[in-house]
Amino acid sequence: MRIVDIRETAIPLKSTLANSSFDFTEMTTSVVAVITDVFRSGKPVCGFAFNSTGRYACGAQMRARFIPRIIAAEPVSLLDETGNNLDPAKIFDCMMRREKAGGHSERSIAIGTIEVAIWDAVAKIADKPLHTILAERFSDGKIADKVFCYVGGGWYWPGQTIKDLQDEMRRHLDAGYTMVKMKVGGLPLDQDLRRLEAVLEVIGSGKHLAVDANCKFDRDESLRYARALSPYKLRWFEEPCDPLDFALFADLTEVYEPPLATGENLYSTQDVENLVRFGGFRAGRDVIQIDPPQAYGIAQYAKTLEMLSRRGWPRTSLFPHGGNQMSLAIAAGFGLGGAESYPGVFGDFGGFADDASIEIGTISLSERPGIGFEGQARLYRIMRELAAL
Amino acid sequence: MRIVDIRETAIPLKSTLANSSFDFTEMTTSVVAVITDVFRSGKPVCGFAFNSTGRYACGAQMRARFIPRIIAAEPVSLLDETGNNLDPAKIFDCMMRREKAGGHSERSIAIGTIEVAIWDAVAKIADKPLHTILAERFSDGKIADKVFCYVGGGWYWPGQTIKDLQDEMRRHLDAGYTMVKMKVGGLPLDQDLRRLEAVLEVIGSGKHLAVDANCKFDRDESLRYARALSPYKLRWFEEPCDPLDFALFADLTEVYEPPLATGENLYSTQDVENLVRFGGFRAGRDVIQIDPPQAYGIAQYAKTLEMLSRRGWPRTSLFPHGGNQMSLAIAAGFGLGGAESYPGVFGDFGGFADDASIEIGTISLSERPGIGFEGQARLYRIMRELAAL
Repeated sequence: MRIVDIRETAIPLKSTLANSSFDFTEMTTSVVAVITDVFRSGKPVCGFAFNSTGRYACGAQMRARFIPRIIAAEPVSLLDETGNNLDPAKIFDCMMRREKAGGHSERSIAIGTIEVAIWDAVAKIADKPLHTILAERFSDGKIADKVFCYVGGGWYWPGQTIKDLQDEMRRHLDAGYTMVKMKVGGLPLDQDLRRLEAVLEVIGSGKHLAVDANCKFDRDESLRYARALSPYKLRWFEEPCDPLDFALFADLTEVYEPPLATGENLYSTQDVENLVRFGGFRAGRDVIQIDPPQAYGIAQYAKTLEMLSRRGWPRTSLFPHGGNQMSLAIAAGFGLGGAESYPGVFGDFGGFADDASIEIGTISLSERPGIGFEGQARLYRIMRELAAL
Repeated sequence: MRIVDIRETAIPLKSTLANSSFDFTEMTTSVVAVITDVFRSGKPVCGFAFNSTGRYACGAQMRARFIPRIIAAEPVSLLDETGNNLDPAKIFDCMMRREKAGGHSERSIAIGTIEVAIWDAVAKIADKPLHTILAERFSDGKIADKVFCYVGGGWYWPGQTIKDLQDEMRRHLDAGYTMVKMKVGGLPLDQDLRRLEAVLEVIGSGKHLAVDANCKFDRDESLRYARALSPYKLRWFEEPCDPLDFALFADLTEVYEPPLATGENLYSTQDVENLVRFGGFRAGRDVIQIDPPQAYGIAQYAKTLEMLSRRGWPRTSLFPHGGNQMSLAIAAGFGLGGAESYPGVFGDFGGFADDASIEIGTISLSERPGIGFEGQARLYRIMRELAAL
């Protein structure tokens, strides 16, 4: 068997959302199709993925470097020991040839997106859901049938009232979610606290509410927010500062007792190790939110989990960023703390299978082979067109 | 005045070089031209730059995000207070709109290259060499007329003998250089030491020789090399390990007394601060080698120098990566330790003005307005064509 072609296309998100730091009006994502010569039901098996929201499309790096390296490789050199399926680790090594040390995000998003598409193909060739394949390989075969899932919501938008925000949170609870996250840092602290308290009225308890500052704050402001937020005993306080300011994270852990969270803007295992080593991040309490398709993909994520495990971190402290079918499969397959959901946000690129159900804060998993994009009609239309299926 | 157009093109380096970690056969660079409506001698003033060797071309990011943001901005919003020249800081802020925190290398190379081209235009509009403009703004007006310059050489190539290597080093000394750097890590330690001792025979003293491992070594190997190299009291030991493994750097400083060096693979001020804070880097002894056009450009470099100064670092401990006319202007303008030179390497993209002279280890500076690419006939041919001058 072999990879016949790898295609990519950039799609605008067309989102009008804004967090405290930036808006998404220019945001794009790269959709990837890995086309194999294996046939199922008369059609070639194709692996799909996209780089999740927040970083721009990265097709140029794919076209210039990573796709040609894979296509130029001896096909058998990319197969596992059975010769009947692809080996993601070998394909990763192939993509990394002639790449310089460091400078991860310049390539980790392009490589990770292709790598996740490879895993989609691997699972489809094995005729199993990706979360089952991951559980077998990385989680002692403990196969989940549902995953804890919370809503990343509470965005700012023009003209929004406190009641609008409360109504949004009520809709999430009515939909079956038990935990929500809201943005902070887009308004002065006193107004943000008023928003927070209004949401708490709806949600009931701080342990079901997280807040997200999207790295907006400088040193003084992050400490000021941390002190002000501390009494609410929230589920977590996400991205209080520059994602690489490990010294400030360490200082924040001194003034902020409840969980802190970060990680969606770390692109290498070494950066995450620096966070837990120098940033004072507390194993078993704080939360790490790497986005696997943006950070070299699933095999690298497994290595990051190994490193964290050696440092005493339970997998339940990991919540992958993304809010999509890929991060759901990863959360399920590795037995992580849970997944994020963006209902009604990010158009075709947010959300899960159309037939997924939310009950008491957990989401059901699909039994479709692979990641399960085939269950997302609007998103799959884009992917099918790219692969000319 | 205003920016009329910004153009970029990707050029293959066509280099057959290899260091211990990777080869340059696929390497490309992005050349940028910023075309203004200011005229000098009947031609529009154009600023030029390129992203120095080692990272691939980044034109896609420029075309998709950074150039359109600049072109869409109100022209007067990008000018300094006189209204007669561009303001690099305002143009930087414009490029950073709608960019997420962290993930620096995905954009820092594209933004930095454009930013350095802006500086070239700024200096040409002011009718001064860039190093003079930088000295006036960032170095109390201390204008250098020459800069210490060493050769980054000693590469591995197929069939190379010890005598070939010694002959290369003799050529550098004959050309007027007093210090050279050679690669290590491409052969087993005992063979590398044989190469090193052969070069020392030519160079005379370890204080005129640096070695560069290009991040090849894992923890054990970097410590092994550090112990073995320590007695030679070299000028520095460069990139002994992963550029983000700050804990290992700290351990290396415990076993390696002479200077260590790194920085060309750090893309943000925060990464550099983490290096000196957590990596045990020793102010006044170790060497930091950021590549300004790859790390958001000259104004960001000035901020990094401020941060380092607060931590006791003298500017003479900084040697910008690059080996080109841009890093030379930066070394001269900020009063840094010196610049690197790659004679005969990296084709049109290595080296300095054709009329530059090397004497007793220093290189003369050009009085041409701007960075001085106009004095590099082969490189300037590419730039002139891009700008249609």
